[in-house]
Amino acid sequence: MKAFPQSRREFIRTAALAGASVPFIGALTSGARAADAGRKLGFAICGLGNLSTHQIAPALQTTKNCRLVGIITGTPAKAAAWKQQYGIPDNCIYNYDTMDKLADNPDIDVVYVVTPNALHAEYTIKAAKAGKHVLTEKPMEASPEKCQEMIDACKAANRMLAVGYRSRFDPHNQECIRLAREKVFGDLRVVEAGFEIHLDQPPSAWRFHKALAGGGALMDVGIYALQATRYITGEEPILVSGTETKTDAVKFAEVDETIVWHMKFPSGVVAYCSTSYNAAVCGRYKGVADRGWFELNPGFYYTGNRGVRSDGQEIRFPQVDQFAAEMDDFADCIMNNKPSRVPGEEGLRDLKIITAIYESIRTGQTVKLG
Amino acid sequence: MKAFPQSRREFIRTAALAGASVPFIGALTSGARAADAGRKLGFAICGLGNLSTHQIAPALQTTKNCRLVGIITGTPAKAAAWKQQYGIPDNCIYNYDTMDKLADNPDIDVVYVVTPNALHAEYTIKAAKAGKHVLTEKPMEASPEKCQEMIDACKAANRMLAVGYRSRFDPHNQECIRLAREKVFGDLRVVEAGFEIHLDQPPSAWRFHKALAGGGALMDVGIYALQATRYITGEEPILVSGTETKTDAVKFAEVDETIVWHMKFPSGVVAYCSTSYNAAVCGRYKGVADRGWFELNPGFYYTGNRGVRSDGQEIRFPQVDQFAAEMDDFADCIMNNKPSRVPGEEGLRDLKIITAIYESIRTGQTVKLG
Repeated sequence: MKAFPQSRREFIRTAALAGASVPFIGALTSGARAADAGRKLGFAICGLGNLSTHQIAPALQTTKNCRLVGIITGTPAKAAAWKQQYGIPDNCIYNYDTMDKLADNPDIDVVYVVTPNALHAEYTIKAAKAGKHVLTEKPMEASPEKCQEMIDACKAANRMLAVGYRSRFDPHNQECIRLAREKVFGDLRVVEAGFEIHLDQPPSAWRFHKALAGGGALMDVGIYALQATRYITGEEPILVSGTETKTDAVKFAEVDETIVWHMKFPSGVVAYCSTSYNAAVCGRYKGVADRGWFELNPGFYYTGNRGVRSDGQEIRFPQVDQFAAEMDDFADCIMNNKPSRVPGEEGLRDLKIITAIYESIRTGQTVKLG
Repeated sequence: MKAFPQSRREFIRTAALAGASVPFIGALTSGARAADAGRKLGFAICGLGNLSTHQIAPALQTTKNCRLVGIITGTPAKAAAWKQQYGIPDNCIYNYDTMDKLADNPDIDVVYVVTPNALHAEYTIKAAKAGKHVLTEKPMEASPEKCQEMIDACKAANRMLAVGYRSRFDPHNQECIRLAREKVFGDLRVVEAGFEIHLDQPPSAWRFHKALAGGGALMDVGIYALQATRYITGEEPILVSGTETKTDAVKFAEVDETIVWHMKFPSGVVAYCSTSYNAAVCGRYKGVADRGWFELNPGFYYTGNRGVRSDGQEIRFPQVDQFAAEMDDFADCIMNNKPSRVPGEEGLRDLKIITAIYESIRTGQTVKLG
């Protein structure tokens, strides 16, 4: 019996299978709600890689407030395939050089940027200048400076900007936030969080290349662990210390393979974390509080998250398509002029902390923040 | 339903109840084995606190190779109570000033030192000079220098010295060592280990006082997490970094309350750890390897340890009295002139690492070891 996936590929396949067989809450309610809500916001997906193909486009079909209207891709073959599969009209197909033309397309309200990390700023800024709201995948960009440029561009264009932190829309993670914030087990003392995967992609894949990825495991999956420590505590770290290791220095010549780090928060709560691109898939966290603890394992998967508490209670909720929930929420925020729980500033904060962890690794010193 | 204990007191009570109702493997086999083995080694317990009273003396009754012969205590009332309960003859009752007289008592082979940490060296050295083998509780002492003095004294007296690392005699922990060393899931990449407890003792208790305890949570319970990272990997850390926090600076004025730290090992495997004296009882660890993972939660309890593997298999073995197993093993090593798996050198190694973690906390820098 194989209870958990063991590689990125298997993780995605398992998730896709689960997605196909489990009725999503979003899917169950989308028909009735769409009729109430009236117009759905038009989404254009920018970057048609695995995540867009296997998660985001299928999820869009189950949303209440959104519809897939357009695509932005540099690969004509992908444009043709998506046109056929999703009935994308020719006037809604763009490439990276024609993004300014988005300004002439009133059917597209939102651009979802799903390109390699270090291209997020370029396409976010183009979309904002064309008058579109922007949802961008995590990590928001490769540096805090780029994140700030994105925030500034969207502000200047009076458009909303949010980051695709899907875990924030998972009921298991939301329950852990409740357990921590409502002090169900008293004050939090220690948070442990880690996310390892096997990056079983060919050496040519962009994630191995610093110019496109910005960084390695920490930026891609460690960011889930970092996020968890922040949304569980509701605090910003004031001190970080990190250590890096490479067990395959050839494969991971340009980006980080395995990192452990710890952080201290203003209230005194501490967190300790790990991430790897060269280990079995394992994404989990635990909050140890004054009178008990809670944990999710797995806690960062597309489907199948579950957990347990020190009093023996299970943490188990019906499956939610996190991507659909994240997109519906962004559309809701836009339509009703509400702040997003995952605004650009949230992505910027993570990049500042990630940058500090890299600095600590480089200098061998703890780094103070804030 | 309360699935796990929430304080040190409750932890000990729960363990005592489990001990009373669960047939220990040691107890089941002790009669037959003792007859084969002939003479049992005579133990004298030095320091009659909670651990001696509730764990070690009861465990001694279930051993195959040992018997409780003598006591060393500074408290006459305790001497009287133990004399009555265990039939200790008057000539086997010592105080800390009369330990040199142990030399005249051929019925006592081993002194088990269970005093406050910073007194281990003094009594170990006295016992060794009196010609006795010494088993000492963990942490071995308050500094590497003291540990070295203990090793030297036992070497000079040609007596064996071992440290009471009971987890090494727990089948769940032994199974995790097997999973790691036999690479059942491939090479280990990351080890997470933590042990928090509530030190719900009065402020006068010796554990709150640096002069007697040497340190706080890290020395007392964090050492289990540290040990786990070392016996799982089979390696010695080459780099450590730690951060301390105090959420109750009054109660923990003299000793550390909560610490997180991480370590790097020569093969490239990394570990990240936590410990606290001010949180719910939670002692666990996880090994994330190339193709899967395994974890114990709880992993450091007297009873009830259990775990799970990424392939869904449970890690569950019949209950063993770890103290009985540890004492029987030490007696076996003495009688058969075999090296202990937990010799004084092992305690010294932990104290060197603990000292380096404290140094890292003090300096804000990673500390290189070895």
